Amino acid sequence: MKSKAHSAIGRLLYAQSGGVTAVINATAAGVIQTARAHRVPVYAAHNGILGALREELIDTSKETAAAIAALRHTPGGAFGSCRYKLKSLEANRAEYERLIDVFRAHDIRWFLYNGGNDSADTALKISQLGKAMDYDIRCIGVPKTVDNDLAVTDCCPGFGSVAKYTAVSTLEASLDVASMADTSTKVFILEVMGRHAGWIAAASGLAGEGADAPPHIILFPERVFDEAAFLAKVKATVERVGWCTVVASEGIKNAEGQFLAEAGTRDAFGHAQLGGVAPVLAALVKEKLGYKYHWALPDYLQRSARHMASKTDAEQAYAVGKAAVDYALAGMNAVMPVIVRTSDAPYRWKLEPASLEKIANHEKKMPASFLTRDGFGITPAARRYLSPLIRGEMPPPYGREGLPKYVQLKNAKVAKKLPDFAH
Amino acid sequence: MKSKAHSAIGRLLYAQSGGVTAVINATAAGVIQTARAHRVPVYAAHNGILGALREELIDTSKETAAAIAALRHTPGGAFGSCRYKLKSLEANRAEYERLIDVFRAHDIRWFLYNGGNDSADTALKISQLGKAMDYDIRCIGVPKTVDNDLAVTDCCPGFGSVAKYTAVSTLEASLDVASMADTSTKVFILEVMGRHAGWIAAASGLAGEGADAPPHIILFPERVFDEAAFLAKVKATVERVGWCTVVASEGIKNAEGQFLAEAGTRDAFGHAQLGGVAPVLAALVKEKLGYKYHWALPDYLQRSARHMASKTDAEQAYAVGKAAVDYALAGMNAVMPVIVRTSDAPYRWKLEPASLEKIANHEKKMPASFLTRDGFGITPAARRYLSPLIRGEMPPPYGREGLPKYVQLKNAKVAKKLPDFAH
Repeated sequence: MKSKAHSAIGRLLYAQSGGVTAVINATAAGVIQTARAHRVPVYAAHNGILGALREELIDTSKETAAAIAALRHTPGGAFGSCRYKLKSLEANRAEYERLIDVFRAHDIRWFLYNGGNDSADTALKISQLGKAMDYDIRCIGVPKTVDNDLAVTDCCPGFGSVAKYTAVSTLEASLDVASMADTSTKVFILEVMGRHAGWIAAASGLAGEGADAPPHIILFPERVFDEAAFLAKVKATVERVGWCTVVASEGIKNAEGQFLAEAGTRDAFGHAQLGGVAPVLAALVKEKLGYKYHWALPDYLQRSARHMASKTDAEQAYAVGKAAVDYALAGMNAVMPVIVRTSDAPYRWKLEPASLEKIANHEKKMPASFLTRDGFGITPAARRYLSPLIRGEMPPPYGREGLPKYVQLKNAKVAKKLPDFAH
Repeated sequence: MKSKAHSAIGRLLYAQSGGVTAVINATAAGVIQTARAHRVPVYAAHNGILGALREELIDTSKETAAAIAALRHTPGGAFGSCRYKLKSLEANRAEYERLIDVFRAHDIRWFLYNGGNDSADTALKISQLGKAMDYDIRCIGVPKTVDNDLAVTDCCPGFGSVAKYTAVSTLEASLDVASMADTSTKVFILEVMGRHAGWIAAASGLAGEGADAPPHIILFPERVFDEAAFLAKVKATVERVGWCTVVASEGIKNAEGQFLAEAGTRDAFGHAQLGGVAPVLAALVKEKLGYKYHWALPDYLQRSARHMASKTDAEQAYAVGKAAVDYALAGMNAVMPVIVRTSDAPYRWKLEPASLEKIANHEKKMPASFLTRDGFGITPAARRYLSPLIRGEMPPPYGREGLPKYVQLKNAKVAKKLPDFAH
């Protein structure tokens, strides 16, 4: 029976991992709809891998088809996610064994882990331990991260939508600044996510093209922050254009290797103020150049903005969920569906399975060829890569009250069968 | 001839004033399309009233019909705006006389000033001085402000769209926080515009209804910030719901009357850090309750987010522009088209002219009946008022590259006829 993947023997467990995105639930919809088509029951872990450790499992069969379809346009993580990295097999073998115990207790035969590098590593280890513990489990990684730093895949579901949000917001805010610059704000600074890689900051460059179009300056974590060069470019831009839009990655560092966001501001209690490189840059502009400034820090707004999702991204997010189930039911193990770009113009892509070993714990940086020589902008090569990823709109349906119709699942828990586990 | 308003005798001057909005250009489209239909030529002042003083006038007849139509979905101020309040007639009569001189030189017979309270006052004074200087000029105020603090009118064009952006962003970010709260952020703080009135903060309340739905706490400038009550409510919410979303108006003050945004944080140079009440609140939550926090400050993103415009708002913005021209050509003077609500459900509204004297320099605060007794939420009365204003979607057209197709006008300048004026 086991070889007949389409039979209802065994269950599939789906878990979301790490920071959620505007489209991770589209992946969940792809997983659940595909599994349902094959009559494979799906459990979801509540709050990611912690739910699996705690045996807090959600029976997705209790959700209507309409609710599952609505996941396709609902941001956040519908089953809950978590930031929790399992230690190495040597350091905490008990956690991995617990996972196998939970799988065994609930007849979980396929485990789909939807996350980034860490999650790929965890999925890989579980698949290896299953073999060692003589439990037949297929582990499939499913890509997700707004940071776009996953190896092998051409891009990551989640990134295209935050990229589109960032490009559109840069364009819109710049139109505002341009119209007020004569008597008001001269320098506008938008801080975006990206602690180690500047992919999101780079996407802001799609807002305009040419020296006078916004953003005039992009600050990447891949380059050391050069205060003098930055201030000189701000000044030259204000003098030439009348105003200046700066997009800064939260992760930029000074020559001493300190995060600018931590080096500067202290709060009312004298503590270093985290998560704000924009006010530090704004203070610098004011202090050294005397320009009136404004700054914005959209934070979670950028990665949850499903209303502004990229169609390309939303479709890829769904597709990787579907493919992950197809791979699992075909008997594959320790792989991830990755996006392969077959053409830039017209943009074409396909999915194929890649070994988790090649993905786990790797980090994809932006190629140096994507940054202009002065380090403040993106090159035509970067535009060729980024542009297709923000294409197309797939807005959520709106209700009569003017709000998107986001779904709230029932999230019915499965009865526990095991004793509690201290993790 | 003069009495025949529809003849091409004389020109109409349109100027944008103060902070721009997502839909102020829709008003410009209403003005220009209506005037064109009546064959009345329209000049626009470059950078608001300063352009009128400097005789920097834009000939809108050089723009195509398609470009003017595209204004209807383009944020920012297409002709430039400014923050510049004319002094009183007594203090600087020369400025007012200069305006009349410019109008006379260019045969401006109708002046439409698109702004808030200050602009209504300026338009009123110009209409009075025209009479005194024996120059026949009709002044019409056209309402605009994201702050929604304009007197007489039921609501202000510009507000509904920032209200919708705020409600949707609150909902989306809260879905993100909810899914991560188990191991990550427990308290999310969104700072919104509103220095004196809490209308925008109040609109966030539309994101959810009931004690457990976000936003759990709204901080209004109409209420003194009560640290103990705030912290107690944050704690109770986290313990009950698992997480807490706070929306704070930038203008909240402590019992000493200080802006919280200025009372707390100092930048790297020891200067008070302006425009950030969210980090001050976040630091407080961390210090006193120990919760992990995130905060967002969308700043200009909120008022330029044409991609998320309220259809109600965009339609009203266009309608007030059209009505202003109709009133002007009908010979009215010193009036503003104001929005009159004739029904809450179904929502119905109409425009009627109101005297600028009743509007100039007044400020509309939120009624006390709109705030819950504890001061942290909105009442059913507030929902009844706010809800229709965010209804409906009117997204801009998008181009193949995935960006909205916002228009950039030619803004061809009219040849000057007068000597320079030092203002």
